[in-house]
Amino acid sequence: MDKNSLLQMLSQVRKGKITPEEASQRILELPYQDIGHTKLDMMREMRVGYPEVIYCEGKTLNQLQEIFGKLLEGDGNILGTRATEEMYRSIARLSKEIVYYPVSRLLTLKRQPIMYSETSVAIVTAGTSDLPVAEEAEKTLDFYGNKVKMITDVGVAGIHRLFSVLPVIREARVVIVVAGMEGALASVVGGLVEKPVIAVPTSVGYGASFQGLAALLSMLNTCASGVGVVNIDNGFGAGYLASTINKL
Amino acid sequence: MDKNSLLQMLSQVRKGKITPEEASQRILELPYQDIGHTKLDMMREMRVGYPEVIYCEGKTLNQLQEIFGKLLEGDGNILGTRATEEMYRSIARLSKEIVYYPVSRLLTLKRQPIMYSETSVAIVTAGTSDLPVAEEAEKTLDFYGNKVKMITDVGVAGIHRLFSVLPVIREARVVIVVAGMEGALASVVGGLVEKPVIAVPTSVGYGASFQGLAALLSMLNTCASGVGVVNIDNGFGAGYLASTINKL
Amino acid sequence: MDKNSLLQMLSQVRKGKITPEEASQRILELPYQDIGHTKLDMMREMRVGYPEVIYCEGKTLNQLQEIFGKLLEGDGNILGTRATEEMYRSIARLSKEIVYYPVSRLLTLKRQPIMYSETSVAIVTAGTSDLPVAEEAEKTLDFYGNKVKMITDVGVAGIHRLFSVLPVIREARVVIVVAGMEGALASVVGGLVEKPVIAVPTSVGYGASFQGLAALLSMLNTCASGVGVVNIDNGFGAGYLASTINKL
Amino acid sequence: MDKNSLLQMLSQVRKGKITPEEASQRILELPYQDIGHTKLDMMREMRVGYPEVIYCEGKTLNQLQEIFGKLLEGDGNILGTRATEEMYRSIARLSKEIVYYPVSRLLTLKRQPIMYSETSVAIVTAGTSDLPVAEEAEKTLDFYGNKVKMITDVGVAGIHRLFSVLPVIREARVVIVVAGMEGALASVVGGLVEKPVIAVPTSVGYGASFQGLAALLSMLNTCASGVGVVNIDNGFGAGYLASTINKL
Amino acid sequence: MDKNSLLQMLSQVRKGKITPEEASQRILELPYQDIGHTKLDMMREMRVGYPEVIYCEGKTLNQLQEIFGKLLEGDGNILGTRATEEMYRSIARLSKEIVYYPVSRLLTLKRQPIMYSETSVAIVTAGTSDLPVAEEAEKTLDFYGNKVKMITDVGVAGIHRLFSVLPVIREARVVIVVAGMEGALASVVGGLVEKPVIAVPTSVGYGASFQGLAALLSMLNTCASGVGVVNIDNGFGAGYLASTINKL
Amino acid sequence: MDKNSLLQMLSQVRKGKITPEEASQRILELPYQDIGHTKLDMMREMRVGYPEVIYCEGKTLNQLQEIFGKLLEGDGNILGTRATEEMYRSIARLSKEIVYYPVSRLLTLKRQPIMYSETSVAIVTAGTSDLPVAEEAEKTLDFYGNKVKMITDVGVAGIHRLFSVLPVIREARVVIVVAGMEGALASVVGGLVEKPVIAVPTSVGYGASFQGLAALLSMLNTCASGVGVVNIDNGFGAGYLASTINKL
Amino acid sequence: MDKNSLLQMLSQVRKGKITPEEASQRILELPYQDIGHTKLDMMREMRVGYPEVIYCEGKTLNQLQEIFGKLLEGDGNILGTRATEEMYRSIARLSKEIVYYPVSRLLTLKRQPIMYSETSVAIVTAGTSDLPVAEEAEKTLDFYGNKVKMITDVGVAGIHRLFSVLPVIREARVVIVVAGMEGALASVVGGLVEKPVIAVPTSVGYGASFQGLAALLSMLNTCASGVGVVNIDNGFGAGYLASTINKL
Amino acid sequence: MDKNSLLQMLSQVRKGKITPEEASQRILELPYQDIGHTKLDMMREMRVGYPEVIYCEGKTLNQLQEIFGKLLEGDGNILGTRATEEMYRSIARLSKEIVYYPVSRLLTLKRQPIMYSETSVAIVTAGTSDLPVAEEAEKTLDFYGNKVKMITDVGVAGIHRLFSVLPVIREARVVIVVAGMEGALASVVGGLVEKPVIAVPTSVGYGASFQGLAALLSMLNTCASGVGVVNIDNGFGAGYLASTINKL
Repeated sequence: MDKNSLLQMLSQVRKGKITPEEASQRILELPYQDIGHTKLDMMREMRVGYPEVIYCEGKTLNQLQEIFGKLLEGDGNILGTRATEEMYRSIARLSKEIVYYPVSRLLTLKRQPIMYSETSVAIVTAGTSDLPVAEEAEKTLDFYGNKVKMITDVGVAGIHRLFSVLPVIREARVVIVVAGMEGALASVVGGLVEKPVIAVPTSVGYGASFQGLAALLSMLNTCASGVGVVNIDNGFGAGYLASTINKL
Repeated sequence: MDKNSLLQMLSQVRKGKITPEEASQRILELPYQDIGHTKLDMMREMRVGYPEVIYCEGKTLNQLQEIFGKLLEGDGNILGTRATEEMYRSIARLSKEIVYYPVSRLLTLKRQPIMYSETSVAIVTAGTSDLPVAEEAEKTLDFYGNKVKMITDVGVAGIHRLFSVLPVIREARVVIVVAGMEGALASVVGGLVEKPVIAVPTSVGYGASFQGLAALLSMLNTCASGVGVVNIDNGFGAGYLASTINKL
Repeated sequence: MDKNSLLQMLSQVRKGKITPEEASQRILELPYQDIGHTKLDMMREMRVGYPEVIYCEGKTLNQLQEIFGKLLEGDGNILGTRATEEMYRSIARLSKEIVYYPVSRLLTLKRQPIMYSETSVAIVTAGTSDLPVAEEAEKTLDFYGNKVKMITDVGVAGIHRLFSVLPVIREARVVIVVAGMEGALASVVGGLVEKPVIAVPTSVGYGASFQGLAALLSMLNTCASGVGVVNIDNGFGAGYLASTINKL
Repeated sequence: MDKNSLLQMLSQVRKGKITPEEASQRILELPYQDIGHTKLDMMREMRVGYPEVIYCEGKTLNQLQEIFGKLLEGDGNILGTRATEEMYRSIARLSKEIVYYPVSRLLTLKRQPIMYSETSVAIVTAGTSDLPVAEEAEKTLDFYGNKVKMITDVGVAGIHRLFSVLPVIREARVVIVVAGMEGALASVVGGLVEKPVIAVPTSVGYGASFQGLAALLSMLNTCASGVGVVNIDNGFGAGYLASTINKL
Repeated sequence: MDKNSLLQMLSQVRKGKITPEEASQRILELPYQDIGHTKLDMMREMRVGYPEVIYCEGKTLNQLQEIFGKLLEGDGNILGTRATEEMYRSIARLSKEIVYYPVSRLLTLKRQPIMYSETSVAIVTAGTSDLPVAEEAEKTLDFYGNKVKMITDVGVAGIHRLFSVLPVIREARVVIVVAGMEGALASVVGGLVEKPVIAVPTSVGYGASFQGLAALLSMLNTCASGVGVVNIDNGFGAGYLASTINKL
Repeated sequence: MDKNSLLQMLSQVRKGKITPEEASQRILELPYQDIGHTKLDMMREMRVGYPEVIYCEGKTLNQLQEIFGKLLEGDGNILGTRATEEMYRSIARLSKEIVYYPVSRLLTLKRQPIMYSETSVAIVTAGTSDLPVAEEAEKTLDFYGNKVKMITDVGVAGIHRLFSVLPVIREARVVIVVAGMEGALASVVGGLVEKPVIAVPTSVGYGASFQGLAALLSMLNTCASGVGVVNIDNGFGAGYLASTINKL
Repeated sequence: MDKNSLLQMLSQVRKGKITPEEASQRILELPYQDIGHTKLDMMREMRVGYPEVIYCEGKTLNQLQEIFGKLLEGDGNILGTRATEEMYRSIARLSKEIVYYPVSRLLTLKRQPIMYSETSVAIVTAGTSDLPVAEEAEKTLDFYGNKVKMITDVGVAGIHRLFSVLPVIREARVVIVVAGMEGALASVVGGLVEKPVIAVPTSVGYGASFQGLAALLSMLNTCASGVGVVNIDNGFGAGYLASTINKL
Repeated sequence: MDKNSLLQMLSQVRKGKITPEEASQRILELPYQDIGHTKLDMMREMRVGYPEVIYCEGKTLNQLQEIFGKLLEGDGNILGTRATEEMYRSIARLSKEIVYYPVSRLLTLKRQPIMYSETSVAIVTAGTSDLPVAEEAEKTLDFYGNKVKMITDVGVAGIHRLFSVLPVIREARVVIVVAGMEGALASVVGGLVEKPVIAVPTSVGYGASFQGLAALLSMLNTCASGVGVVNIDNGFGAGYLASTINKL
């Protein structure tokens, strides 16, 4: 409920068409669907321009079925993250249009046409093993109507690979860097492009990588300016943030 | 053995009905049942008003059977926490009245009527994935005779969901906030209600959540006053503490 | 602005005494005083029953003077935490009634009579070195109208000291345990009393105490039920929480 | 040296005006000024649109004088970060136009007119103690030609303060959230605005804040989508990133 | 080779019975059996009074068979730690006398009579779940000829259980305390007995116990004097150390 | 109050010489002197054989004067740890017999003759910089009547230094190893002697020593059997524990 | 493309045989094979003297098949690290010459004769459980043409085992020390040999070894000079570094 | 005492010129000078080719004077690390030839001519603030007779600076990379040169650099092969290791 509807409603209060009690209730009442275990934010797309995303991890199959069942009553697009194959199979019964990406563990249902922006987002990965996270960012960006250029396996150990693709990277409006191990690629790219850079540390590595902590700390301490960092393995978050920037 | 019984017993010593040796022994002797691997605190309910709770994790099936077997000789209510399904099946042979909650992994046996308090405790969860911990708190509160209001999925990313349920939360005498990820809900609720707030960080999340550490630190550093924190995923502890407060 | 005033104001909208625009503005307008760097929550006492507390650390002398200057225009009681002696001297020029506690680094200004509760809160410390934190809790409790019983230096290394004061502790409605080093006192007290226990880890110790981390982890993992934990050295938070419980 | 100049130079090679040896050298030679301890990137402004920034911490007074002396030979604008008052006094002898901000410890020298963008960046702080970091972001944004709206002291413990300023925040193109302690403000703001949000954890707090670690982890694990995080206390980095986004 | 044998051998050198080259070789040659992957310290019992112990974890079945096969050629007693059931079955083929303790995962082979000391070691556990670690200490102590008194489940949450067994604990010459969660039992016992206390933190617990870190830090920071700590879950190490003390 | 005195007192109750009330009070009353901020355990020497030790850190000069003033009323020996020079000067006014060791920051007052044990304790340090901690152990051992052999600067980087002093070390009944940096000396000594070894990690080092954490973890994970570890820099604790072992 | 080829090509530009556009493209073009998910650095052997190594972990079977398929088109030697048995079976179909080492999880394909250096590298392990990491180093060194001497199970708990093999160790040009638990062997060896020492911490251990952290910190803080450390369990990295040194 | 001298001495035993007792003593006796608090390894230069280095931190002025006084009795070169200006002034009285480097805090006394190797070591720093650590490595290398090429301020944020100096770096036999913040320079250099690379993380940075931890983890997890890491800020260790490699 934005300021305009508030004004409108209060005018109706003045005219006596709505009682103060009722208005008071409406002001305190907020727009979501309560299905017991979950409150579905059906008006989120209207409010912030993005439909609600379902974080599947930790939810039971039953809960997911009820959530998707409810969302399927509407006609919006739906995005689910961190879904297992078993979750997909359980949900897939509800609609044949749901697509599952086993590498990035995303679920999408596209019922409304997606309007693509003119400008693009570049996703740059350090290694092949970072691809699941990169794909999560890529599919998220696509879902929100962004063109994506994916550039893989250009980690700094062979930095000449990066330089040959720099022109492609520089054409993008926003750059996402996905890297595990020491995550140095974020600093190198950050120093080479003048665009906003979003760094995604991944848990690729072993030993003192401590499940991505090394890459995370590395990216937070980057000597390059203009780099924002998201959680370890959070390809979705990087894609979402890149989309809000790309769509400005 | 409280001060009164001590006085009483010492009076009997004076009267010569009990020898000093015997009295000395009784004072040093303390009220529990020793079954080898475990000392069952049979008089705990009398002493602190709460029956002993069995922490099942790390105990063998044999040990659990002996513990519950002993407790079943009495007629008190019994609560078991962090029990696997296999543990339940093993114990269930001893008594058909034992109930198992697979989501929260609690075992209960209610043989005495539960006297419910007038006032209630509110449990507020940030997301659907926090439900197992919230249910552990809920069933614990119920076991100890508290009325509970469960409010789920009102995390701060869609804060309007929280505001519409605030009146319900404010009716409670104590509020438990259950949240993973960044655990911000505890601070927001703590700033909105004037009641004692108990915050339970959960291990919901990934990457830099470090199995609940992020939510734990967040809750400990809350800028809201009047928030006490329990261990990560410790729904039982939150329920127990809330019960001691609610019953004051 | 609570629900009643909202109803009242909306009635005036109905009667045409307030325009919808004006009402809309008032609803969105919230009760604080903006003095540039700080937003003073002048109506906090009305809203949650406790006046706003000034966290002094990290504020400049100028900012503190402006904040206290503004608050002194009202006639409420004022509490400042983590204030240095220099801060006190700077503020003291504004009012001679401001009292400074150099050990706990609290500032208080009491202009309204404090109504004391019947029941009391016990503060139990493990060692003499924990006194600054304990005093912070004590003066906070006093400021909010709670009677306090302070029991010092009963750490578990000489546990007989604790047992002799147990009757005094058990008379209280809420118990605060303040301990550094390994913080074991919280568990021992938590196992002996049936009241809500608030544990405050302190940074007393050295080496692997890691500035209070050892005591903090110890208290969070307590084997006693019914213990809530606040931040390291957070005597104020413990006092505030104890007060909300004691006043129920 | 971009692709165009390379083409141009190679044309001159073809025409025999430049020897292959010379061209080869130029290609390998890169544009900076070497003053012994430091390589000044004089062409950075041309290359990425931003003049080089001097990170003053850890440099000796002598080194800083040589660096600024060299930069003063040009006519560009200069920004220095994390400078002590002593550093400022040492540099100030070289030019009276250098301005020092003691709270945020920035040095600026503006010799070229700054072209301001139409759109603005909002900086939102949780508390008054976060102001030094917020000012670092503010002055950085101003230096790079961005309009800034500073909104202070709207931490989540009194969330009504935030709601009253939401319209102002929503007018901005990018939002920077500066918060210490538990850093929950980033999640709440991230859930309320549809713009890119940059979160800056600060070291404000004590105990288990571990010098800003709690706020950092909290922001990385935010349940709100579209939030990028920079290093603890890194107001400059947040300002720089916001500028690259705002200028798109 | 102790000083006496060295003198003896050098006398034989003087007498010309051993060439200097041979003597030089012998001095550099040290007493162990090399079986490729492992160097078996066959003379360890002679040198330090304790036979070598086989740390089974991380060794292949083949390696273990070769190690035990070699040791079985001698006639000493053998102790294996952290052995899986599969390892046992693989070794058991070599000798029917090998005994396996599935709870503590120890292997023992006793071929020489064990001479028991007069004095005893007490093992005190906080909970039933600490039993595997306690049994590891118990069987180790037995293997080295110490009498053991095992006292289980006397954690501080019900401290009266501890007091009733204090006389038994005080009869021991050395006391081992085994505790997980917050490990407070070590401090309480350390304050009550005047004997050397060895504390063993266990990984019993969850959440902020961080696999035993909480108990470990707690024990290292104990306010009781005279407590030595071994690694998390290291029942063997505690038993070994207790044995060296008990046998003095 | 031991069992004998309890029996005696109860006999007097039987004879009517003590009222039950009085006896009840005495049983609950425990032997210490309460001087407000501190409870002095005057009978500790009688109970556990060691006089109470004053941990000076974190206590005010006033508190220390009152504590030592009270203790000086008795005639026992006194030990103070972690005392600053300023603390010493403040206490020194009370008695000229108090001795201060500025390197180890100990205070001692010896009024009773010290009975030395026959056997000795060896203290072995890795480097010269570990001497303050080693001296704390040495003076503590001396205070409790143990003969000490101090062997300094035999760190493993030049392991031949250690071998030449091995015979001296082996004469001792207990060995304390004091080492910072990587703390490897504890493992090497532990493998060479058959006596109980107490390892004291020190904060000597820099960078990834993390104030002694590296040495602490190293010692806890020692591959040598029979090593107990105390807190970082805790020379007193090591000395105390060694004394309880040496005096067996 | 080295400086010579650049000069050559530029000469052809001068002669008009190559257009500037084409030359410009070639300079920016860099030598690798792009197979979509991976960029194969086919000229790496020419550039730095070592063929590219395939880090198998985190790659899908499909990706590995495509990578090895591409590499098999050439005739160089191939090394794959951290490969599972399943990966091996999938790759093995492509060429029968691929060898798999299940203990160290290496894959090798040797098609070119390996030229062995005169000098050797010694690998010293603390325990039998460190063998998988040691073998990874050994096979890597062999692959790159180094002679290796493997000395196993000479941990410091029985330091005499180390001394008897010292002459063998001292014959090597470079020494690799592989140790878990407290990793003390690196310091002892570092103090005994005058050659470069490379330390590899392993995750062998439990409890406070924290998956190799203890050994890592220990090695980084070694009191011996001349020790370089690689990641936990990184036998490949140690072998590679040793090879670059041995081949100097 | 090497094998030859042992043989020689044993021959003299055979001839009766040395008694077995005396020989036995000499074998056990090892070559150092004991000055109480410190054991000076006077024959270290003979044994491992490098004179002993004095780690000054944590030593008293008195101890340092005695150590240097003793060393000055010989005629070797001396190196002291981590010395304060005050330490230098105290030592300088003993010999006018002692040189102090205030930036790197090294002390050197060169009395023997230094024989320089033909080959050189390159030191590459990321920023100007890393110079103190780089100078420590540089002066150490010089002290041990290595030619050094120092290349400063080529951090990856402006990677073109690095490429222009690559030929200089590639001429060296060993490369030391000194970098703070995210330490990415080590990976980039490691990928560009085929020589052994030694990485030194520095404590340059703030916030989540955690005093150099970020750079340390980054370097340990480098995706480039052939990189060995030393402790944070350990310029001496890097120089020493580089020297042992360069002198091979």
